[in-house]
Amino acid sequence: MRVTDVRGKRAGGRRPGVSGTREAILAAAQRGFAEHGYLATTIRGVAAAAGVDPALVLQFFGSKDGLFDAALRADPPTRDLAALLDDGGVADLGERLTRRYLELWEGRDTGPRLLAVVRGASASPSASAMVSAFMADAVMLPLARAVGTGQAELRANLTGAHLLGVATARYVLRVEPLASLDRERVVAILAPLVQHHLTGDLAGS
Amino acid sequence: MRVTDVRGKRAGGRRPGVSGTREAILAAAQRGFAEHGYLATTIRGVAAAAGVDPALVLQFFGSKDGLFDAALRADPPTRDLAALLDDGGVADLGERLTRRYLELWEGRDTGPRLLAVVRGASASPSASAMVSAFMADAVMLPLARAVGTGQAELRANLTGAHLLGVATARYVLRVEPLASLDRERVVAILAPLVQHHLTGDLAGS
Repeated sequence: MRVTDVRGKRAGGRRPGVSGTREAILAAAQRGFAEHGYLATTIRGVAAAAGVDPALVLQFFGSKDGLFDAALRADPPTRDLAALLDDGGVADLGERLTRRYLELWEGRDTGPRLLAVVRGASASPSASAMVSAFMADAVMLPLARAVGTGQAELRANLTGAHLLGVATARYVLRVEPLASLDRERVVAILAPLVQHHLTGDLAGS
Repeated sequence: MRVTDVRGKRAGGRRPGVSGTREAILAAAQRGFAEHGYLATTIRGVAAAAGVDPALVLQFFGSKDGLFDAALRADPPTRDLAALLDDGGVADLGERLTRRYLELWEGRDTGPRLLAVVRGASASPSASAMVSAFMADAVMLPLARAVGTGQAELRANLTGAHLLGVATARYVLRVEPLASLDRERVVAILAPLVQHHLTGDLAGS
């Protein structure tokens, strides 16, 4: 996508192609949702920031919800999580998933953005449901499927609910002593439980 | 407190005493927060519903945050949870806590109120932090202390974060298949993990 942008600049003011325009809208939407939250971000504002007509945003993404969903899916942190599949074996997947998840929340760039998305989304039931559906469909479910222990959907639900609950307590509500605990200590505590969600016996079923 | 109300009525229109007035304000606040959420509930509105002067609400509770905190603490569902201490031994505390917690979320009266409080509170960081602090201080912490396995505060954090994450996924966001799973199945899945939070080895510390 960067190639398209560069080409556009080289051509000296020529309008970027369809994929460049879509990328520009997505980038403006990601900034808007992260900085102002779901409710305060508008199709009109995103269009203005991307330098396009609001009608074009609707043509590409259908609605504000569609734009939010696309912005989530294109977000590098969440793509990173799903890529854990390719990094190693199942034996320590719980540990790697937990560590990577916490690292994203503590990253200098990714942390504030996750916080803003979760805070912004919590003000809107539809955005909250989309964040949750996204985490399940795009991140947890592929991981749970790859593990191959069956009931991937339920395992993805249990993993996502547990990690999001801990992240909310530690990073959003800043509950002590959990909020100040060393990250590797949190990984050590949670990893066996996350591993259990992914590979353990789900109560005799 | 009910005694005071009854006595007030028996006396035929005589103004209730201090404790009756405080109770009336609290009851109005609980209805207000549950039905309209934290942000839309005002000191003025609660005072009007309780038939008292707004200044009196402030005199009793100091601020809207103080009123919200008092309303949470006086709420029967949350008092119920803390009373689990007295119901039985430590061996199956994880199971009893998990079952009672889910029952409250599924109760005909308590479920909609919990949903309204969590949804209303999520729109306000200060109210969210108070709900979380309340669950930790008034419910999870006494349970973790009574277990006597050490690090009660951290155990309370981990238990509260896990249960709230699951409740959010199951009851607020209605993530499937978790949302439609039989309650006893969810209890069977979560109970060993909650028991581990309360009594297990916290990663070698």
